[in-house]
Amino acid sequence: MEIADFRLGNIMEHNLPHTIALLTRTPAALNALLRDLPETWTFKNEGENTWSAFDVVAHLIYGERTDWIPRARMILQFGETKTFEPFDRAGHVQESQGQSLAELLDEFARARSESLGQLRALNLRPEDLQRRGRHPAFGAVTLSELLATWAAHDLTHLHQVSRVMAHQYRQAVGPWSAYLGVLQCAGHSSP
Amino acid sequence: MEIADFRLGNIMEHNLPHTIALLTRTPAALNALLRDLPETWTFKNEGENTWSAFDVVAHLIYGERTDWIPRARMILQFGETKTFEPFDRAGHVQESQGQSLAELLDEFARARSESLGQLRALNLRPEDLQRRGRHPAFGAVTLSELLATWAAHDLTHLHQVSRVMAHQYRQAVGPWSAYLGVLQCAGHSSP
Repeated sequence: MEIADFRLGNIMEHNLPHTIALLTRTPAALNALLRDLPETWTFKNEGENTWSAFDVVAHLIYGERTDWIPRARMILQFGETKTFEPFDRAGHVQESQGQSLAELLDEFARARSESLGQLRALNLRPEDLQRRGRHPAFGAVTLSELLATWAAHDLTHLHQVSRVMAHQYRQAVGPWSAYLGVLQCAGHSSP
Repeated sequence: MEIADFRLGNIMEHNLPHTIALLTRTPAALNALLRDLPETWTFKNEGENTWSAFDVVAHLIYGERTDWIPRARMILQFGETKTFEPFDRAGHVQESQGQSLAELLDEFARARSESLGQLRALNLRPEDLQRRGRHPAFGAVTLSELLATWAAHDLTHLHQVSRVMAHQYRQAVGPWSAYLGVLQCAGHSSP
C-alpha cells in the first residue's frame, strides 16, 4: 500500500463520539438506499461466492450479535488472557433464510441500536480504550482499534454494496464503464 | 478487467423503472449517512487533489444541473448531430463555496427530484432509449446508456464517499486494516 506521508499526516485519530456518530447512521443509510428497491438490485451479487446487498445486511446483523460488543466485553473482562472467537463470515447465511430484505433492515436497525445502548452503558474512559485483547490472527489489539474497526467495517460494506449494485449495470452503461471508478474496483470486500 | 463469463451472464439489462428507483433513493441515503456527522468525517479527503464527502455532494448537484437531463434532451433533440458539452469535473467547486453540507444535501434532494420530474415528463418509449447522441470522447452513445450511467454514477460516488471516510480511520483500526477491503481500494473515483 502506498500512502504518501501527507495523506497519513492529516487523518483522524480514533474518537469514540465520532465512531458512535457513524455507527448510529449506517442502518438509516442502508434503509434509505435499499428498502423497496427492485430485487434485481438487492438480490444479485457479483458472481459465485460473492454477496448481494441482502447478504451484506444479514452479515451486519450477525456482527452485531457475535462480534463487536461481545469482543469489547471480552477485552474489558479478560484482557489478553482470552482469545476472541474467530468471526464466522458465513454465520449470517442460516439466520437470513426466509427473511425479507425489509425484515433484515428492521432487524439491523434494532440490533445496532441495542449495541450502541450497551456501548454507552460501558461508560468507557479514555484509559479503557487502551486496554488490550487478543485477536486470533493479529495477537494484541486495543479496544480503541476494535471500535474504530466497527465503524470502518460499516464503511467497507457500504463500499461493497455500492460496488455490487453498480456491477449489475456494467454492460448497460456502455462506454461509460471506463469513467466509473466503482467498476474498476477489484472486489476487495467479497465474499 | 477480467470478468468471467458467468458474471456477465447474469447481470441486468438497462431498465428505466429500476434506474429511476435507484436515482430516487440516493439523496435520502446520503442524507441519512452524512447529515450532522462530525465535520472530520465529511470535510476531510484522501489527500491533495481528492474529494471529501462534501465535495462529492456538490459534484452530484452540479451533475443534476449540467449533465444528465441536459444531455438526455440533446439526444432527443439533436441525435448524433451535436456533441455533448464536456462535463466540468471541477464545476461544483465555485457553487459549493460558503454552503454548509446540510444545505448541499437539501439542494441535492431538490435538484434530483426536479430532474426525475423532467425525466418522467419526457415519457420515454422503449424506442427512444435506443436513440443515439454524441459524446465528446466516446462518440455514439445511446440514451439508454446515458440513463444507466446516471444511476451507476450515483453508486460510484457512494463507493467513493465510503472509501474517503474509511480512509480517515486507516491508522485507528490498527492491524484490522488488512481485513477491510475499502482500505485496499485504490481510489479509482478520485478526484
